[in-house]
Amino acid sequence: MQNNSPPLRVSIIGFGAVGQGVATLLQDLPHVEVVAVADSRGVALTPNLGTLLSRKRAGRPIANSDLTALEVIRTIEHDIVVEVTPTNIENGEPGLTHMREAIKNRRSIVTSNKGPLVVAFHELVQLARENDVALRYEATVGGAMPIINLVRETLAGNRILDIMGVLNGTCNYILTRMAEEALDYDQVLSEAQDMGIAEADPTYDVMGIDTASKVVILANSFFDKNVTYADVAVTGIDRITPDALRLAHQRGFAIKLIGEVQELTVSPKMIPIGHPLNVGGTLNAASILTDHAGEITVAGKGAGSIETASAIVSDILSIQKERC
Amino acid sequence: MQNNSPPLRVSIIGFGAVGQGVATLLQDLPHVEVVAVADSRGVALTPNLGTLLSRKRAGRPIANSDLTALEVIRTIEHDIVVEVTPTNIENGEPGLTHMREAIKNRRSIVTSNKGPLVVAFHELVQLARENDVALRYEATVGGAMPIINLVRETLAGNRILDIMGVLNGTCNYILTRMAEEALDYDQVLSEAQDMGIAEADPTYDVMGIDTASKVVILANSFFDKNVTYADVAVTGIDRITPDALRLAHQRGFAIKLIGEVQELTVSPKMIPIGHPLNVGGTLNAASILTDHAGEITVAGKGAGSIETASAIVSDILSIQKERC
Repeated sequence: MQNNSPPLRVSIIGFGAVGQGVATLLQDLPHVEVVAVADSRGVALTPNLGTLLSRKRAGRPIANSDLTALEVIRTIEHDIVVEVTPTNIENGEPGLTHMREAIKNRRSIVTSNKGPLVVAFHELVQLARENDVALRYEATVGGAMPIINLVRETLAGNRILDIMGVLNGTCNYILTRMAEEALDYDQVLSEAQDMGIAEADPTYDVMGIDTASKVVILANSFFDKNVTYADVAVTGIDRITPDALRLAHQRGFAIKLIGEVQELTVSPKMIPIGHPLNVGGTLNAASILTDHAGEITVAGKGAGSIETASAIVSDILSIQKERC
Repeated sequence: MQNNSPPLRVSIIGFGAVGQGVATLLQDLPHVEVVAVADSRGVALTPNLGTLLSRKRAGRPIANSDLTALEVIRTIEHDIVVEVTPTNIENGEPGLTHMREAIKNRRSIVTSNKGPLVVAFHELVQLARENDVALRYEATVGGAMPIINLVRETLAGNRILDIMGVLNGTCNYILTRMAEEALDYDQVLSEAQDMGIAEADPTYDVMGIDTASKVVILANSFFDKNVTYADVAVTGIDRITPDALRLAHQRGFAIKLIGEVQELTVSPKMIPIGHPLNVGGTLNAASILTDHAGEITVAGKGAGSIETASAIVSDILSIQKERC
């Protein structure tokens, strides 16, 4: 398609699991050239991605230059900054500074980093509009489960009335296991931590903070709101008992941690067992209520480095496609 | 977006439930002009859609010209033919002739009519390519549930390995009710007929023919196959018993009529109860297995005139968007 156009030049800022996943997938993508990769220790310019991935996996430094990530964003000519540094929803940093500088230098953003979008959604959207660049963030909500582009592109003929979702795989795993095995919250949490499904400090997931961040992003994206984390009423799953799950089940319901976007709430809710939102294990699911198409539900893996990276690559491809 | 471009000129060929749904939605769509509407009795040129819908609902004729549908397609200048005549999977007619003529006259096609695509998929795709027009058919599979455009646009970064789905709402309703109420097939079929969920002659749905048609369309679209209805091994749901459903449930499974696209089969299959494909009532669902994003499942209303019409309008909008 773009055989005669110059390759799309991309930097990868952040080289943890998702950044490495992006590098892995971009190796096979024609017409995309990675001009720089930055991790917390330094910057590799014009890297060979295969070599770089091997070095990183072996715990060796990747840097081959004295530039910082911010200097790459400011001074190296390229089209897209893939911002995949760790999420910080208090102040959005370092992602927020990276994004502001990228946009001011007329580079598009593709990101899985919720922090900057939770802290400064409208500022970034407006800055991107003023500088005529794209700001794409499919990977921030539901990992590989497509929701933002599904609403934007595929459901374009519809008005979106509401979105509600099971948006955190850790919580869903814990509630699914508690219901299936009649186990206590603490038991299943330990099990999830042992399996790497929950973090050593699980607060961000189990207290609903991660889900609330996604609610903020969806609310600002689709419902013309201008909200941040503080606007969401959040209840976690730490006080759910096996008894509550059993009683709900007897009445034909499952209990899931649900983010409701119009309402700006995150809380455990009863979902009819036959409803498409009632997905098990670590799956995520979101129901999109539309005026004409009715309720459309999408479900998929909410996390995983390759899955999240694939959402980032979809965004890169859609920017590539729009350069017509 | 296209404020300065001329309006997109559309004909609606077929004015049953879906055609009327399309007319209803197009009333509110800017930059789209309906140049003609054809039903089985005649053609209305430059219609006022509100008046036309009232006449149709009152059982009055809509024609204001001596043209036939085919003459409209051949002689009236316009951009898109919305082909929504009844499905005939034996010979694809009258839709197939409509589509061939439309494409030869350089008009794009948007359709919910499975017949022509089941009979002559590759001929139509190639004809459309040669004439540089679009052939869009999101509404043929799963009504409002987006699947074709979801795969094409939203999952563009992935290779699609397989698709399997619950693609017929009538069958799903019957199996769901049989399982919930431990009722016989014949009892629930009568109930579904009374409710208008099943046709007086339910063969097309319950024997899996409709599902197989959708499998053919998906196989030809996404797996580089060149198959027709005869290539699909089809088993219906008419021999499922409440006992089979009960036994499956005891083992943690539901029985659903599943279309498997790579395998080219339609048959009742056991689905784990917690799997996202296990949707209830008249819902449709499809699981798309991808190389990087894992398994993505989408669920929604598979039928309904406004829902199907909304899929047609999404296709019209995407053609409009591509005129850049």
